[in-house]
Amino acid sequence: MTSFHTVGIIGKQRDEPQFGAVLQRLMAHLHRRDVAVLVDACSASQARAAGLDCDQPWALAALGQTCDLIIVVGGDGTLLQAARDLANHAVPLVGINLGRLGFLVDISPCHIEDRLDQILRGEYESDRRALIETRMDGGAEIGCALNDVVLHKWNSMRMIEFETYIDGCFVNAQRSDGLIVATPTGSTAYALSGGGPLIHPGLDALLLVPICPHTLSNRPLVVPGASCIEIRICQFEPEHVRLTCDGQFDLPLAADTPIRITRGDQQVTLLHPPGHDHYGILRAKLGWSGHPQSGQPC
Amino acid sequence: MTSFHTVGIIGKQRDEPQFGAVLQRLMAHLHRRDVAVLVDACSASQARAAGLDCDQPWALAALGQTCDLIIVVGGDGTLLQAARDLANHAVPLVGINLGRLGFLVDISPCHIEDRLDQILRGEYESDRRALIETRMDGGAEIGCALNDVVLHKWNSMRMIEFETYIDGCFVNAQRSDGLIVATPTGSTAYALSGGGPLIHPGLDALLLVPICPHTLSNRPLVVPGASCIEIRICQFEPEHVRLTCDGQFDLPLAADTPIRITRGDQQVTLLHPPGHDHYGILRAKLGWSGHPQSGQPC
Amino acid sequence: MTSFHTVGIIGKQRDEPQFGAVLQRLMAHLHRRDVAVLVDACSASQARAAGLDCDQPWALAALGQTCDLIIVVGGDGTLLQAARDLANHAVPLVGINLGRLGFLVDISPCHIEDRLDQILRGEYESDRRALIETRMDGGAEIGCALNDVVLHKWNSMRMIEFETYIDGCFVNAQRSDGLIVATPTGSTAYALSGGGPLIHPGLDALLLVPICPHTLSNRPLVVPGASCIEIRICQFEPEHVRLTCDGQFDLPLAADTPIRITRGDQQVTLLHPPGHDHYGILRAKLGWSGHPQSGQPC
Amino acid sequence: MTSFHTVGIIGKQRDEPQFGAVLQRLMAHLHRRDVAVLVDACSASQARAAGLDCDQPWALAALGQTCDLIIVVGGDGTLLQAARDLANHAVPLVGINLGRLGFLVDISPCHIEDRLDQILRGEYESDRRALIETRMDGGAEIGCALNDVVLHKWNSMRMIEFETYIDGCFVNAQRSDGLIVATPTGSTAYALSGGGPLIHPGLDALLLVPICPHTLSNRPLVVPGASCIEIRICQFEPEHVRLTCDGQFDLPLAADTPIRITRGDQQVTLLHPPGHDHYGILRAKLGWSGHPQSGQPC
Repeated sequence: MTSFHTVGIIGKQRDEPQFGAVLQRLMAHLHRRDVAVLVDACSASQARAAGLDCDQPWALAALGQTCDLIIVVGGDGTLLQAARDLANHAVPLVGINLGRLGFLVDISPCHIEDRLDQILRGEYESDRRALIETRMDGGAEIGCALNDVVLHKWNSMRMIEFETYIDGCFVNAQRSDGLIVATPTGSTAYALSGGGPLIHPGLDALLLVPICPHTLSNRPLVVPGASCIEIRICQFEPEHVRLTCDGQFDLPLAADTPIRITRGDQQVTLLHPPGHDHYGILRAKLGWSGHPQSGQPC
Repeated sequence: MTSFHTVGIIGKQRDEPQFGAVLQRLMAHLHRRDVAVLVDACSASQARAAGLDCDQPWALAALGQTCDLIIVVGGDGTLLQAARDLANHAVPLVGINLGRLGFLVDISPCHIEDRLDQILRGEYESDRRALIETRMDGGAEIGCALNDVVLHKWNSMRMIEFETYIDGCFVNAQRSDGLIVATPTGSTAYALSGGGPLIHPGLDALLLVPICPHTLSNRPLVVPGASCIEIRICQFEPEHVRLTCDGQFDLPLAADTPIRITRGDQQVTLLHPPGHDHYGILRAKLGWSGHPQSGQPC
Repeated sequence: MTSFHTVGIIGKQRDEPQFGAVLQRLMAHLHRRDVAVLVDACSASQARAAGLDCDQPWALAALGQTCDLIIVVGGDGTLLQAARDLANHAVPLVGINLGRLGFLVDISPCHIEDRLDQILRGEYESDRRALIETRMDGGAEIGCALNDVVLHKWNSMRMIEFETYIDGCFVNAQRSDGLIVATPTGSTAYALSGGGPLIHPGLDALLLVPICPHTLSNRPLVVPGASCIEIRICQFEPEHVRLTCDGQFDLPLAADTPIRITRGDQQVTLLHPPGHDHYGILRAKLGWSGHPQSGQPC
Repeated sequence: MTSFHTVGIIGKQRDEPQFGAVLQRLMAHLHRRDVAVLVDACSASQARAAGLDCDQPWALAALGQTCDLIIVVGGDGTLLQAARDLANHAVPLVGINLGRLGFLVDISPCHIEDRLDQILRGEYESDRRALIETRMDGGAEIGCALNDVVLHKWNSMRMIEFETYIDGCFVNAQRSDGLIVATPTGSTAYALSGGGPLIHPGLDALLLVPICPHTLSNRPLVVPGASCIEIRICQFEPEHVRLTCDGQFDLPLAADTPIRITRGDQQVTLLHPPGHDHYGILRAKLGWSGHPQSGQPC
């Protein structure tokens, strides 16, 4: 009756009061549907704290290999983390938010059972999102991100100077607080605060947003997803420049070593219940107007 | 020796002092290369004013059918016009500017002979640009544009209200001075003044930029090129709203008739001499910094 | 017991369903407080439509001369209009909104009686707002505005070109869709949509916001309130450029005649109940965050 | 013949190839005009390196007490530093740039002798600029700035959260990369990169510009110069938030201690040669258009 026989649950690292209750409903409902449930360490500890009967926690890689589906419970940050951790696995993800709609975790705890049943019955929309990866010139991959890779000044008040190349072509030299290289997924995150446009997740593109650039005409750039973006830092001072992936950790940089950022081959697959409404989420999160007056098309 | 045997020349409608001299060099050089030269009415009149020997002028459609290559002499506006006029013809275009570099007319009059020889020898880069077309719901095409289709308030101080749909999904209702729907080519034109990003011409995308929107979170949107954009005007007052293509003419609108804007099937092919540098043009036009200090990579 | 013995009521021109009920409560309460009530034509007609007993309507100028206080019922637009109409009179204004908080009409219909009693008892905050006026070079005043004077393209797709001078000094020549010259009051209106900053109403300043300027570094300017702003239109085409005051009417322009815009000597005085919170209104209207979490200072 | 009998020279800390030559001309010309010349340590060392005869260097405070006029040679940063260092002294400053026009150092080395003679003859424009100062709640002054005081995230990728109060009124709680509080002088510096407006130096105002705010309607604010701006950091983590003055040094912050920023009582007086053109400098630095076509008013 379902193609999902083994479902993993990944939880948010920081405590949320409602996490226990959500976990309980989730586990109970999955058991009711005869689905095997595996949990990560975080969910296991939350489950036990909530007095739930719970198996041993699984490592993420093992979850990725074993599960047909993974349910992420938390905020967008929790799902970003899970997507990066499972980037080498094909398992699809479903996001349940803990009360506040996210761009990525779009299922409300109110509707867990109904939405889950739809997905278990195969009624869902599949939404593939590209990750980007960054590496030093010629080196191994050093990080991947679902939202953005950000070069930024660090431990310093002074703008940094760097040159940008796209597919080997020199773009410009700029002085700014840094550069955000974002996926369409990341266009609603830090890139938006930096003045970037909203990019539809179905578009194969990368977005470059300079952070507080000295030159006012240094506007955001949108380039084909297959582009190779290269950044060369002028006057490299290791303590004053950082590179981060999804804002979570920073990567070692070296003098005279260009940074290469490309859309990776890896994708994460998000499943949404039927009727998923990308623009509805934008309207809710950004305070856009819905239909005027009557709620009907004018 | 060349695959271009018959070359058309299309000129700028308004007088430019140097047009005669450019035309003379152009025609002389093409004759020297044994290429047949056909001119449009505007070029013919300029040629005669400059005392040049010149055949009868050709209608644009006839130029489009007969020529292997068309040289457009003027500014970006001249090339935009030629691209729209020749949208149903496959003939490639080359743009020569009359002194000021354009985003589209990138050959300087100083280098006419050399650049032309390169192109006639088959040494060129081919650059295909999508056009967008707009039609009323269910109706015939009513306009095409290489830069943008713009809905805007007209004859009025009051913002207009409209709803936007993409591929049938409701996006939002907005009050603003209007909406720019631009191609990547148009992202350096009016859309840029309206706050939009720069989009690489190789990306198959459409750009929506609200003009002075009442809601500050109504940011520019970038969507896949194959999207169908539909605009429904609320409280339609025919004298207070207009739709234009490349800023040149306006289209009749009717109450209760959504406007549909799509990337058309038609493309225009621009030829550039080898070494064409898209970002170099952006740097020159937008005042971006080149390589710092020495002119060498840092 | 009150220094306000004669109170005028000015109403919104377009029908609002709740206007009758608000008017009834307002008139009943003022009579209860032994205050004479005079109404404008609009309020009189609404009052009669609501079956209220109502004296003959008064002309605005007569209201301005006769009343100690004028209550404006409607939206910000109603108050803008009243402020312009009464610019030559010293009478203070109070704004009651018809259900949606305005930047200027800040008293909710829910609290009419309480707020009115506070004001009648002399418990209020007085808030003086400058108007700006515009005149042709050497000519008579041709318009005044509480929000903004806007020069803009009209009946045309093409940007207009004009030069700006401040206190006789050349500022720049620009191509754009127009220029907004706003008071601090107007900084929350059209100027905000155009990208301008928010200016505190207590600052004696004028704000210049270019509308979609061709040059990206043409940023908004804030200048001293006593500045004389002069605009000279290049290539004046009377049908393609307009000047409006508060977006409500347009003014005749003539070739070769600079436009002068200055803060006028006139001010309008708004009265607010005690505890008026300018930033609270900004938070409510712009969707800013209040105190995080607990509602307490962090 | 001049009211300036003792002139100090303050130089740029980092080497500039032309500094020696400028210094030589400057010192020679001042001696020719019988003006006593005192130099700071930096200028003295540069002078000696250039083989000039030079007295012992003076400490800045001593220069401030002894001189009638101080000439700053360098860039805007050099003048900012001098202005802060001499904030307690009434001595006026003149700025000579080393080749690239600054917003503050507006005399070109080409015109040293002529401009200096004008100023010595009393032909100058006096331009008073406010400084801002910042202190912890109830504490001593901890820093002053001619451009800006900036609160910003530090050593971290995460936005900081803080509340802003103006004159005791709560403005908003925001998540962002920080907040720039700038003088009109600073409106052309970092605040401009952050999206702020240009403020005329003659306006007594302070400017607040949020850096990459999470909420898109968190627009720049312009408030009266006498305002007291208070910032309260939520979840204060000393290693992840910094406060700097003119981008040059950072100030200790403490938990639960609001930061107060006010326009100080101190002002710096800049002297400009006659015909100083504030907007001319903006045009040159920001790439604005001058008079169209002919260079004549249209």
